[in-house]
Amino acid sequence: MTAPFDAIDVIRAKRDGVALPAEQIRWLIGAYTAGEVPHEQMSALLMAIFFRGMVPDELAAWTQAMIDSGERKDLSSLGRPTADKHSTGGVGDKITLPLAPLVAACGVAVPQLSGRGLGHTGGTLDKLESIPGWRADVHEEAYLRQLREVGAVICAAGNDLAPADKLLYALRDVTGTVESIPLIASSIMSKKIAEGADALVLDVKTGSGAFMKSPEDSRALARTMVGLGEAAGVRTIALVTAMDRPLGRAAGNAVEVAESVEVLAGGGPADVVELTLALAREMLGAVGRDDVDPADALADGRAMDVWRRMVAAQGGDPDGALPQPAETHVVPAPATGTLTRLDAYALGVAAWRLGAGRARKEDPVSASAGVVWTAGVGERVTEGQPLLELRTDDAARLPRALAALEDAIGVDGGDEPLPLVLERITA
Amino acid sequence: MTAPFDAIDVIRAKRDGVALPAEQIRWLIGAYTAGEVPHEQMSALLMAIFFRGMVPDELAAWTQAMIDSGERKDLSSLGRPTADKHSTGGVGDKITLPLAPLVAACGVAVPQLSGRGLGHTGGTLDKLESIPGWRADVHEEAYLRQLREVGAVICAAGNDLAPADKLLYALRDVTGTVESIPLIASSIMSKKIAEGADALVLDVKTGSGAFMKSPEDSRALARTMVGLGEAAGVRTIALVTAMDRPLGRAAGNAVEVAESVEVLAGGGPADVVELTLALAREMLGAVGRDDVDPADALADGRAMDVWRRMVAAQGGDPDGALPQPAETHVVPAPATGTLTRLDAYALGVAAWRLGAGRARKEDPVSASAGVVWTAGVGERVTEGQPLLELRTDDAARLPRALAALEDAIGVDGGDEPLPLVLERITA
Repeated sequence: MTAPFDAIDVIRAKRDGVALPAEQIRWLIGAYTAGEVPHEQMSALLMAIFFRGMVPDELAAWTQAMIDSGERKDLSSLGRPTADKHSTGGVGDKITLPLAPLVAACGVAVPQLSGRGLGHTGGTLDKLESIPGWRADVHEEAYLRQLREVGAVICAAGNDLAPADKLLYALRDVTGTVESIPLIASSIMSKKIAEGADALVLDVKTGSGAFMKSPEDSRALARTMVGLGEAAGVRTIALVTAMDRPLGRAAGNAVEVAESVEVLAGGGPADVVELTLALAREMLGAVGRDDVDPADALADGRAMDVWRRMVAAQGGDPDGALPQPAETHVVPAPATGTLTRLDAYALGVAAWRLGAGRARKEDPVSASAGVVWTAGVGERVTEGQPLLELRTDDAARLPRALAALEDAIGVDGGDEPLPLVLERITA
Repeated sequence: MTAPFDAIDVIRAKRDGVALPAEQIRWLIGAYTAGEVPHEQMSALLMAIFFRGMVPDELAAWTQAMIDSGERKDLSSLGRPTADKHSTGGVGDKITLPLAPLVAACGVAVPQLSGRGLGHTGGTLDKLESIPGWRADVHEEAYLRQLREVGAVICAAGNDLAPADKLLYALRDVTGTVESIPLIASSIMSKKIAEGADALVLDVKTGSGAFMKSPEDSRALARTMVGLGEAAGVRTIALVTAMDRPLGRAAGNAVEVAESVEVLAGGGPADVVELTLALAREMLGAVGRDDVDPADALADGRAMDVWRRMVAAQGGDPDGALPQPAETHVVPAPATGTLTRLDAYALGVAAWRLGAGRARKEDPVSASAGVVWTAGVGERVTEGQPLLELRTDDAARLPRALAALEDAIGVDGGDEPLPLVLERITA
């Protein structure tokens, strides 16, 4: 059969600023996924999209075509509302870990198909894998059973979830076309819409440690994603939240699991608790459960109970000892005063260089590596007090991690930190 | 060995408007030619170049890297000045055929390594191949011998002439990145500089039948190419010339050879004679032979003599009968008055559809197909007189060729035609 379109015409149209018709987009994404349009044509188109953008209808068609490259899951058999959260990624952002069991404890199922970390922000699956025995791979049947019986699953996405995105993401990664709002939005939303949840809450980070450094870009991405979700019939709400400093007191894998367990036990850092509750309220409200206060489920141990069952259902031992690093190194506070700067990006890079993250998809990560800190932005510190603890399995990694931290810490003065939640964006 | 650069960094820098350093360009072109940088990365970079352009130093380094992917020929052993001409391509543009023997007859060797036509403008080799027995492939040794003994060679470029350009051109062709002045200029100039001539005269066409439709774009391309030639030590001059109407009275293969022979015999259409002499004077002047008037060599038959020896040296029979078409179809003049419009692009497409050109590299061309016309722009025509003759081997091709000609002809009124030579551009 002859192709109905020619990829070169599609590339040239986009290059010259034409909005692509839906049928061209459907054909192109299908043909690319089937291997009929070669990578070099798609990468030229992606670069043209980087420069030209996409209008809302065009982007909705692009996202829908990516969803249709696989299967959109149907969770109606659960007989329960479903809601998920997605974060654009930040340093110390372990929120999914306490949030998923908390929302499940409030009667709303949380089906989270997740990815691995790449670069300086960690991945949820990488963090959970520091729990002895825990497995990220859950088969379709076990997935639905766990959602029904436990109420929450955090596991690896299968190959049938927006397969076009897998291909496109790998291509964008090597062709300098990652940083494009329509391409970022369609990549995230195609997977999240295909997941089949009734509602979606987006945590769009902003600041040095985030993918989007400025509130304007973060807002634009949030608006674009909310539009795509609602266009596909998913109730979608976005919070733009601070990532000028890291979240909580730990960045890494095991250290973030430990902090999440503290939160579920009723303690933990104030910002992690606050953001977890804010996102839980959005998820509950989005499916009409405004009547439930997630703070109760956190206080009375129900969320912790779901966490333990969720971990156990995937082979993990909720009481197992978390891995400890072979080496630690303490960085003292440089002065006495108020901690006004603890740069998210610098801490993320340090944790990454200590072994907590990967540079390439196929790299392993260290469960025990990371950074913990004793004070957050806005708190008093005394010169010489231990401020950061660097954790690694390999002392040879310390010098490059320390180099990343050179400008990371500031005492007194400097810019006002961002509010934790900058803005709430709805359709 | 680890690569000194990462292609992704090069792509992102160009995408963000950074001028690439020469050593990055050298590495990239070398690694791409060696197959170490994949097509999808190069096509993303080409699209970024389409949007961002290149500054002069950057483009000079890019062109030099393309030259260095093969060998820059050394013609100093000829003991004679050398000059070549390149046209950006037009309809009925057979100028190389009379020009090369004419300049050779004036004592300057003409080493022309040429390509085949693609699209609506014909290729010089395709035209010459309509001469019975003529062969485009000439081995290195025979090439130098012919240059020494005959003074002119027009033949196919070997694989060692800017091989990076072969790869890049094929990639641009399928990725919508052909229409970029720096990429066009570097493609042409890398091959022409590698050819090894002392001087180069560029015929940059402008108008509907040309690659560059506007005088502004043509001037910009001409200036860019002159800059690249001079930077590489080749005396380079460009003429911007008219391609709103076709050149001469014939577009096709055998019909253009016939017209070229008429010019060499002292006749032929006035515009072909005028442009041939203008370009010959530039080529001679560029190597310091202003003292020689090419009109003499045309008038006294020396140019014809070189033509016959040049054709014979490559196996062709200069007296051989040229192929005739199986079918002809006459288009009459639509009105009485002055012919003010004979659109170059429309005639080029008609000739192409009749079989004179190819849509894909691997397509054959018909030697006998083409269009001839009885009057040029500015001449009187009478309603009903035969104006165009369409020639083809396959009558089934006529309807689509006629469709291309729908708006091609105008009598009285309309825009003033462009002067034959619009501008002369030097460093």
